[in-house]
Amino acid sequence: MTVLGVAILYSSFYVYLRVEDSNTMHVTELPLLLVGYGFGASFVALFAQLGGGIYTKAADVGADLVGKVEQGIPEDDPRNPAVIADLVGDNVGDCAARGADLFESIAAEIISAMILGGSMAKRCRLEDASGFILFPLVVHSFDLVVSAIGILSIRGTRDPGSKSLVEDPMAILQRGYSVTLILAVLAFCGSTRWLLYTEQAPAAWLHFALCGLVGIITAYIFVWISQYYTDYKYEPVRSVALASSTGHGTNVIAGVGLGLESTAMPTLVISVAVISAYWLGKTSGLVDTDGSPTGGLFGTAVATMGMLSTAAYVLTMDMFGPIADNAGGIAEMSQQPDSVREITDLLDAVGNTTKATTKGFAIGSAALASFLLFSAYMDEVSHFAQIKFNEVDIAIPEVFIGGLLGSMLIYLFSAWACMAVGRTAQEVVNEVRRQFMERPGIMTYQDKPDYGRCVSIVASSALREMIKPGALAVVSPILIGIVFKIVGQYTEQPLLGAKVVAAMLMFATVSGILMALFLNTAGGAWDNAKKFIESGALGGKGSDAHKAAVTGDTVGDPFKDTAGPSLHVLIKMLATITLVMAPLFL
Amino acid sequence: MTVLGVAILYSSFYVYLRVEDSNTMHVTELPLLLVGYGFGASFVALFAQLGGGIYTKAADVGADLVGKVEQGIPEDDPRNPAVIADLVGDNVGDCAARGADLFESIAAEIISAMILGGSMAKRCRLEDASGFILFPLVVHSFDLVVSAIGILSIRGTRDPGSKSLVEDPMAILQRGYSVTLILAVLAFCGSTRWLLYTEQAPAAWLHFALCGLVGIITAYIFVWISQYYTDYKYEPVRSVALASSTGHGTNVIAGVGLGLESTAMPTLVISVAVISAYWLGKTSGLVDTDGSPTGGLFGTAVATMGMLSTAAYVLTMDMFGPIADNAGGIAEMSQQPDSVREITDLLDAVGNTTKATTKGFAIGSAALASFLLFSAYMDEVSHFAQIKFNEVDIAIPEVFIGGLLGSMLIYLFSAWACMAVGRTAQEVVNEVRRQFMERPGIMTYQDKPDYGRCVSIVASSALREMIKPGALAVVSPILIGIVFKIVGQYTEQPLLGAKVVAAMLMFATVSGILMALFLNTAGGAWDNAKKFIESGALGGKGSDAHKAAVTGDTVGDPFKDTAGPSLHVLIKMLATITLVMAPLFL
Repeated sequence: MTVLGVAILYSSFYVYLRVEDSNTMHVTELPLLLVGYGFGASFVALFAQLGGGIYTKAADVGADLVGKVEQGIPEDDPRNPAVIADLVGDNVGDCAARGADLFESIAAEIISAMILGGSMAKRCRLEDASGFILFPLVVHSFDLVVSAIGILSIRGTRDPGSKSLVEDPMAILQRGYSVTLILAVLAFCGSTRWLLYTEQAPAAWLHFALCGLVGIITAYIFVWISQYYTDYKYEPVRSVALASSTGHGTNVIAGVGLGLESTAMPTLVISVAVISAYWLGKTSGLVDTDGSPTGGLFGTAVATMGMLSTAAYVLTMDMFGPIADNAGGIAEMSQQPDSVREITDLLDAVGNTTKATTKGFAIGSAALASFLLFSAYMDEVSHFAQIKFNEVDIAIPEVFIGGLLGSMLIYLFSAWACMAVGRTAQEVVNEVRRQFMERPGIMTYQDKPDYGRCVSIVASSALREMIKPGALAVVSPILIGIVFKIVGQYTEQPLLGAKVVAAMLMFATVSGILMALFLNTAGGAWDNAKKFIESGALGGKGSDAHKAAVTGDTVGDPFKDTAGPSLHVLIKMLATITLVMAPLFL
Repeated sequence: MTVLGVAILYSSFYVYLRVEDSNTMHVTELPLLLVGYGFGASFVALFAQLGGGIYTKAADVGADLVGKVEQGIPEDDPRNPAVIADLVGDNVGDCAARGADLFESIAAEIISAMILGGSMAKRCRLEDASGFILFPLVVHSFDLVVSAIGILSIRGTRDPGSKSLVEDPMAILQRGYSVTLILAVLAFCGSTRWLLYTEQAPAAWLHFALCGLVGIITAYIFVWISQYYTDYKYEPVRSVALASSTGHGTNVIAGVGLGLESTAMPTLVISVAVISAYWLGKTSGLVDTDGSPTGGLFGTAVATMGMLSTAAYVLTMDMFGPIADNAGGIAEMSQQPDSVREITDLLDAVGNTTKATTKGFAIGSAALASFLLFSAYMDEVSHFAQIKFNEVDIAIPEVFIGGLLGSMLIYLFSAWACMAVGRTAQEVVNEVRRQFMERPGIMTYQDKPDYGRCVSIVASSALREMIKPGALAVVSPILIGIVFKIVGQYTEQPLLGAKVVAAMLMFATVSGILMALFLNTAGGAWDNAKKFIESGALGGKGSDAHKAAVTGDTVGDPFKDTAGPSLHVLIKMLATITLVMAPLFL
């Protein structure tokens, strides 16, 4: 869809503008017109992810707090009035929102890579710029093909005589991923040779192919790190589980500590990836009109493309999670035999892991793309201001303050997202308590709970609660840009508004990446620490350690499914809004 | 002490170097030699604050988890084997550590203001530079005088016939603060007229006096904001208390949300303060040899001095907290009549508020001083490299990556600090449980618990656990500087190491300010939400809401007393270590 949309839009602009007046715009500047498309995608994705996240987690937390903790009925029990809201929430928050999110990721990254490719081809005065502009579209078309082959290659073996699955479903999924990965590397190298070969710099395509490889490796390491920190096979989650045995407080402290610590490794990986992709690009042999090497930023862009070259497969694995989760819910509600629930529980656990890795993947690609988005913005400003804008000097007090405000945005946005879930969950708790109290027949299956009330509470709350953080994301970059443009006019600093906005964007990106890693990992670790105890460790279900672990899981819900996954969308939203609004700051 | 130390050192350098060879160094460069002193102060403060924080909170959390939650004995009960460790911890963590911390704050800020004043006087070719260099020392000498007068002005009225205090102790303390504040404004204006008057720019002293006022107002607003977010008289803490009534999980979510949200207002205040002080300084009329206005950074330095011009009084108010806390502990242990405990409880509550406001004050001054510390570093690099180093362009990938790594340092440091408390508290819990189990006579007062074991557990753990975060703070800036110096040599980017370190410092400062605000406020709010419920709201002591609030308080302990207050010391430590090590990165 993304590829199709961008391709159609690009072609229409191409035909329409070329025919009318060939002087108004050069082919290398066409991608600038696509920015509005990316902005629209970000806008929808932010609201889908944020609203969906509030919806699903308010329902989940509310259902658990009364159902599991107070009344002691199992998860997804049909007697719980909030159970339908919880199941619908899985679709709203995990399927629909994640889809909008990845659509947005790919759109923003394709478009900024196209802008960058175009402006670089123009600066280097390449004979044919179209290869550099169309490269991202071709890579993502291949993504669809290789992912489809990867998915078709999956074959589960099943013993017809046994009720349970013979093979670990995770292993089957990973086999398909390996197939996709290998094909993606081949397709990627082919595309670079085909589209990025230029006589000016014959070795350039090889450098860019290596950049793509850097991206693919980064994706792989990110997926591995998020598994290490959230899977209970490994030390970190087990230490959180152990901390549960000394109480609710130590469990929460351990989870927060683990989440904060987990930011270190991915940061180092991203640092190495950005710098090496930049240097591979810079030494590609492409030179500016004044002879200076110029392919650096395009190198990071190609690395991002590499990272996303298996995106369709990763999204498929992600969708596995909520589908398995809902299947389990339906099995419980329709009172299927235990053997069915056993299979869906196994699939659900695998789904939790794939969901965690997708989040790692999404943050990783956002981090790698961050440089791409800054430079698209700086190109845009240079284009409108007609002067070269290529530095953001944070030793200027106003620019530094812009950065401080940008980081603060991330904290405030996360705060409002968490608080929205907390408040809505309290409403759900009160409604469920009310129904249990007024209609005691519910617990004895004689009376049917009013599911509709809970659904409408979370739906209307989600819509209402996303206004404040959503407005923050849209209004504040524009406000900061305009205020500092005026300050710049009074203090005779040209381009001050644009510089402050750039710093805001960069600091927000850094804080957003770290905060998202913290929130996602802490949430995932708490969830699986609880699952580890439920599997029989440290006293098992019903023990004090389990109660403490449930507290951690509840805290982790808005972290990992509301605030955390909204942040990388927020980062890109800030980037695309500044791209669209750039002329305002000049 | 700080003032005396810096003054003696400065005078000795002055006499020693002037006599020997007047050509080696100009008087304006003398303050550079003081950097080592500031580094030493930071080093000690970091370990005192971090180690002290681990000591006090591990003892506190451990004592509460077994004593209050499991055994149901009151706080500070002599039967609890960890009670002595807890009381000693109050001195170690709150008195000794906070003293080392403020000593460090004042030292780092005096020294960088002296460096800045000296280098500015040199650039402007002022007749007599000594006024600009000595100004910070004079301001802090006045601080001691006006604070002493403020303290002496305090008179509590006491009705001899009544057992309880007639007046709110907070009101008495605030009366003294008002006296100090008014005197400080007068002394500050006098000092600026005396030392910063120069014939080159006759209005400059007035501009700088206004900068000082900006600092004093900032201090006042910061203190007010931290009261708003942590005092249960106001809405935020009450909403956390309300969230406790729906469970442990919602309590923690509400506290985290509140802490994240509380970063917004202080950030806006700091932004306005930095920019206005900078512009007041820049328009002061002081000009460079090439005619460009140059007093901007010195303006922010003067604002910082203004903020710290009542530091001695604030430190006195802070010390009130742990003293009152321990007095309560001793009253409980020596089984004094209830009327004594009533008075100490009242004093303790006031102490909690003054402790919270001091933390706000410390962060505010660190934030305002941040610009001062960057520019001292950039002056230092310019001095050693003999070229002007005055921009940090984060559009260069390596420099941006330096920033990302700097922000990550803050997360990793906070993680390790929280985890250290969690781990040590688990050790204390196990030891206390062991003593209660092996010697049942303790509970019936027949057997005396082994207090020494708990003291030695927390003491040795605190020493051991602070190695990792301490080493992180010392080693990583040096490592980053040297690695990127080498990268710069290979890629022919001069000064790359120094630039990357500058970005690291700036991003770490921004993340450190926000993270410290988050941790301190969330911790304070949880603590007072618990106190609010204990005062009888929402079911009072022993209710389910109270249990949930105790969980929040436990989580908040390492936030507000270990990681939180260490962060602004860490920021300054990073700044002074880069100052000392600057020649290594060139």
